[in-house]
Amino acid sequence: MDCTPVWFMRQAGRYMEEYRRVRKKYDILTICKNPEVAAEVTLQPIRRLHVDAAIIFADILLPLQGMGVNLEFTRGEGPVIRDPIRTAADVKALRLFDPREDLSFVLEAIQIVRKELNGKVPLIGFSGAPFTVASYLIEGGHSTHYIRTKLMMYSEPSTWHALMRKLAKITLEYLRSQIRAGAQVVQIFDSWVGCLSPGDYSNFVLPYTRQVVQGLKEEGVPIIHFGTGTSGLLELMKSAGSDVMGVDWRIDLDEAWGRLGRDVAIQGNLDPVALFGPLHEIERRVEDVLKRAGNRPGHIFNLGHGILPQTPVDHVAAVVEMVHQYSKR
Amino acid sequence: MDCTPVWFMRQAGRYMEEYRRVRKKYDILTICKNPEVAAEVTLQPIRRLHVDAAIIFADILLPLQGMGVNLEFTRGEGPVIRDPIRTAADVKALRLFDPREDLSFVLEAIQIVRKELNGKVPLIGFSGAPFTVASYLIEGGHSTHYIRTKLMMYSEPSTWHALMRKLAKITLEYLRSQIRAGAQVVQIFDSWVGCLSPGDYSNFVLPYTRQVVQGLKEEGVPIIHFGTGTSGLLELMKSAGSDVMGVDWRIDLDEAWGRLGRDVAIQGNLDPVALFGPLHEIERRVEDVLKRAGNRPGHIFNLGHGILPQTPVDHVAAVVEMVHQYSKR
Repeated sequence: MDCTPVWFMRQAGRYMEEYRRVRKKYDILTICKNPEVAAEVTLQPIRRLHVDAAIIFADILLPLQGMGVNLEFTRGEGPVIRDPIRTAADVKALRLFDPREDLSFVLEAIQIVRKELNGKVPLIGFSGAPFTVASYLIEGGHSTHYIRTKLMMYSEPSTWHALMRKLAKITLEYLRSQIRAGAQVVQIFDSWVGCLSPGDYSNFVLPYTRQVVQGLKEEGVPIIHFGTGTSGLLELMKSAGSDVMGVDWRIDLDEAWGRLGRDVAIQGNLDPVALFGPLHEIERRVEDVLKRAGNRPGHIFNLGHGILPQTPVDHVAAVVEMVHQYSKR
Repeated sequence: MDCTPVWFMRQAGRYMEEYRRVRKKYDILTICKNPEVAAEVTLQPIRRLHVDAAIIFADILLPLQGMGVNLEFTRGEGPVIRDPIRTAADVKALRLFDPREDLSFVLEAIQIVRKELNGKVPLIGFSGAPFTVASYLIEGGHSTHYIRTKLMMYSEPSTWHALMRKLAKITLEYLRSQIRAGAQVVQIFDSWVGCLSPGDYSNFVLPYTRQVVQGLKEEGVPIIHFGTGTSGLLELMKSAGSDVMGVDWRIDLDEAWGRLGRDVAIQGNLDPVALFGPLHEIERRVEDVLKRAGNRPGHIFNLGHGILPQTPVDHVAAVVEMVHQYSKR
């Protein structure tokens, strides 16, 4: 490419009218489980925004059902797990499943999207990282303080490690199957890992993320490793071995890249809330991110987290234009 | 002192039975407005925990009522402002008040506590920082994404700056009056500032916090500047000029202190959730924090944020012991 590539986390989402129309008919799980619909939703932002990558429409908690966990999405509350994982017996009962069977709908959606895209832009597959998935499993949903999650680390370390071993295995298998189905890049979402101290990250999380990343190396596709609130964890996260590090807006991109070193590519890092502002302010911020990236290859423009539901779609489209214009080499 | 001093944010709080007994009789605002009760609650952790400082019992949103804002504390929801500040006219209507009149109850509580402490440990006064108070004023309560707050910065910068000018003036006056009433240290809580990018912090927040800090210099008491999720903002925050920088657990203390430089003292930084763990794990973490601080003067041991309501009180007391024992010089 002769300019900086750009895509957005949650680029298929409620901020887009086309998506809201589909959501009126189906809930999230139904969309995910219907490959034709998931493919359609995946392609909506490609048509509307001219972004440089598609990301398969799915949810990071989809693997839970294959593991035998009762997952629901409630209006307003988000994901709810009515039988959270709290004990060694709970962990033991988690099923190791074959994603080619239990998540075949995701793999089929990938195949459809690849065919539809026909090489126009690459398709990104993804999964939650073991820690972030574990936090939902243990807390039973979103959390503010992650007390039960951390308490399992501190009080029941062998239960914690057993859980993480299972999740690492499942994550690796799931991403591998996505790649084999046609995903040309994969992103590992460790969205909530920023709640941890570097010491806890290092002892309780990093070995498992590393296992996933290293296990994927032989598949030969680029791996993006993403989290939020990770300004104190960046070097540790890098040591998991991904090709691209995602950073949020809470750190300047040049500062982050300087700390990480130029042997890793970087993805980010506009504040998603910036998209609510007036266009001239958005432009100032987009230019600032690009300037800090030094207009070098190895920068993928993105937000620091997913697009928020009330975001004006025109502003999102404008950012794609701005990135392409400003970074033209 | 011949060891590292330790106190805890929210050391007077629901985790303590003595406090819960008082809260059964009075709501938070009633406690704050009754100097005898506020003083009693302030002293509870001194008796129970042997901490090295008292912090006056108050709430960072108390100044709102003096400004003419309708503040309530609802069960579960926390602070609620039914008429949030959204427009230039709203900002204009905010009253600049004299804390010696409208917040005289806080100053009286400070006087009572000083008398009761009789020099045993110093008393810390505090206030919210202009940004964090502004975020409550604009959002109407707690927030996840701070969309309206940031939107005011981006779309109505003159309204934002007018609001921050007023809040800086009120914060400065309030802290000055606390010092003159007897506070021997003050802490500025910019608890939610970690939601900002460094650029936004620099343009929209730092000048006002700096104004408060600089305005307090002539009072001759140490100033602690605290926030959470600030790993990407530390150097900027330091430039406001405080004597002590508070850091949370999301960054290693040695890393933070190294970046900040040894000309500033540091406060922190145990994860409040660590206090839920078994004592041997707490001990390992307390020692780690102290080791990273290099057992130097200039380190004040604290959590990275306030004590959580379900925290076992014995664990809090044990941390005080551990800090004193381990850091004995």
